[in-house]
Amino acid sequence: MTKQTLTVAIVGAGIIGCSWATVWARAGHRVAIYDSDAGVLERVSERLTRYVSESQSAGHALLPGLESRVTLHPNLEGAVARADLVQESVAEDVEIKRDLFQQLDRLSRPGAILASSTSAIPMSRFTESLEHRQRCLIVHPATPPHTLPATEVVPAPWTDRAVVERTLSLLKEVGQSPVLLKKEHPGFALSRLQGALLIEMFRLIEAGVITAADADTLVRDGFGLRWAVLGPLEAIDLNADGGIGEYLNRYGHIYDRMAQEKHESKLLVDPSLVADLVKQMREQLPLEQIEAKRSWRDQRIAMLKRLLASKDNVD
Amino acid sequence: MTKQTLTVAIVGAGIIGCSWATVWARAGHRVAIYDSDAGVLERVSERLTRYVSESQSAGHALLPGLESRVTLHPNLEGAVARADLVQESVAEDVEIKRDLFQQLDRLSRPGAILASSTSAIPMSRFTESLEHRQRCLIVHPATPPHTLPATEVVPAPWTDRAVVERTLSLLKEVGQSPVLLKKEHPGFALSRLQGALLIEMFRLIEAGVITAADADTLVRDGFGLRWAVLGPLEAIDLNADGGIGEYLNRYGHIYDRMAQEKHESKLLVDPSLVADLVKQMREQLPLEQIEAKRSWRDQRIAMLKRLLASKDNVD
Repeated sequence: MTKQTLTVAIVGAGIIGCSWATVWARAGHRVAIYDSDAGVLERVSERLTRYVSESQSAGHALLPGLESRVTLHPNLEGAVARADLVQESVAEDVEIKRDLFQQLDRLSRPGAILASSTSAIPMSRFTESLEHRQRCLIVHPATPPHTLPATEVVPAPWTDRAVVERTLSLLKEVGQSPVLLKKEHPGFALSRLQGALLIEMFRLIEAGVITAADADTLVRDGFGLRWAVLGPLEAIDLNADGGIGEYLNRYGHIYDRMAQEKHESKLLVDPSLVADLVKQMREQLPLEQIEAKRSWRDQRIAMLKRLLASKDNVD
Repeated sequence: MTKQTLTVAIVGAGIIGCSWATVWARAGHRVAIYDSDAGVLERVSERLTRYVSESQSAGHALLPGLESRVTLHPNLEGAVARADLVQESVAEDVEIKRDLFQQLDRLSRPGAILASSTSAIPMSRFTESLEHRQRCLIVHPATPPHTLPATEVVPAPWTDRAVVERTLSLLKEVGQSPVLLKKEHPGFALSRLQGALLIEMFRLIEAGVITAADADTLVRDGFGLRWAVLGPLEAIDLNADGGIGEYLNRYGHIYDRMAQEKHESKLLVDPSLVADLVKQMREQLPLEQIEAKRSWRDQRIAMLKRLLASKDNVD
């Protein structure tokens, strides 16, 4: 099958929007980028240059002529009129998204997929009244998608099954790891998985069991290395010769006991916890070094990804 | 400071015991390995060969003469009589550990540190009545410690502060990442962090939101790559220009809402969930391939570790 060259409209040109633009453009597709803020649009070129360089570090083959395939648009219609897929990555505000999707419903061409990057707002809350609501669905990436392929796809109850299948298939073609959620679960899955771990870290820190830096060390120098290679369920499946069944027969009661624990109903992320975390994190890293640390992070993630991908080819 | 060559006794020669033996022997220390089961003792040499090879893949410099520094002992006294540090890694059974620590209390030389690899049994439950209980503490590693450096150190209320400090310092010298828990918290921290994520995965699978394989994909191809580089708190600290304070002001309510959720008090890891997980995992990986997959995992983790360590040296 010859892969078709698509036109993808990126609506909202911040970090996520530019990262999505990189994912589609490096795979050979045309990308039309829109932002209502001229200042944001001005920074797109600098962001894309950096993300393309990180893509190369991560081992992505870049199809030639990438820059000629990317266009910038100060008006929405110009960006979306010919798009086969529109990826919205604007602010996390349901009113803003509702207004924008009404415009997309009107401006997009017949058959265009209308996707939102929202991390937590169910599609059904801002597309119910649209004429083409069967073409709307959530495509929420791990951040940023040009280095982290995990992406959750969450249809609304009215999303056309063919639209879901085509979206999953296109995402796979450009190298993402899309995962279909079978229900519009509150918070979806990606944020909930991170949330579960963060909540436990907050509780341990608040209870005075461990410092923030030490909690990070346990994950980074322990599970992080393992989970970059194997998911947590695959990991416990290898922890007993009889697999996950034997493992859960032996240790399931530990998870049950933890799942049954009662916690105080007071706020967890309260001002005193936030103040404590700010103090601890600022001692580790001054605010003015945050941007440099982000580049450091992205380069290292890119290298890990390249190493794992290159090993996939020889395994 | 010239580093002192220690004698370390490994009590219990299964996977964890042999992995600990590798950690100490590759750093130049003498290691005396005991197991009550002659069959287990016979497999030690094969295990060490594999773990030493993985240590090399992970970039560990191996001090020469490693094999000559390791001795096998069919009786406990022979292994522990001259040990500076005893690391117990026998079955997770409080009665077995209580009996063993009574013997260690009697057989070990003055000043020896008596450490347990238990993942969840508080030290105070099996050392209270010992003459030398101030030398006892928990040193619980991520599994296996020769590739994953994260290690939690959990003193009992009566553990001597100097013993704690010396243990932390020795672990750092041999390349582990030890973390001190300030309290004997139920389940400690390492297992609780993994448990929090697994419990959320179990709940999403049981609610029919996602399959086991897809839940693994979201972690492996998303957070895993990130958390191998940065802990989860460091990671959210970089997600806002104002750091974790700004991030939590913006998104803290999401974690609060999730932390306040009420769950049914019925068993989570019940027979139907276990049967479902077994079915899904066995479709992915037949039981007879578990051992091969473990080698694959350990080689890949070793390579990631080497890459991250080599970059540490140039950053």
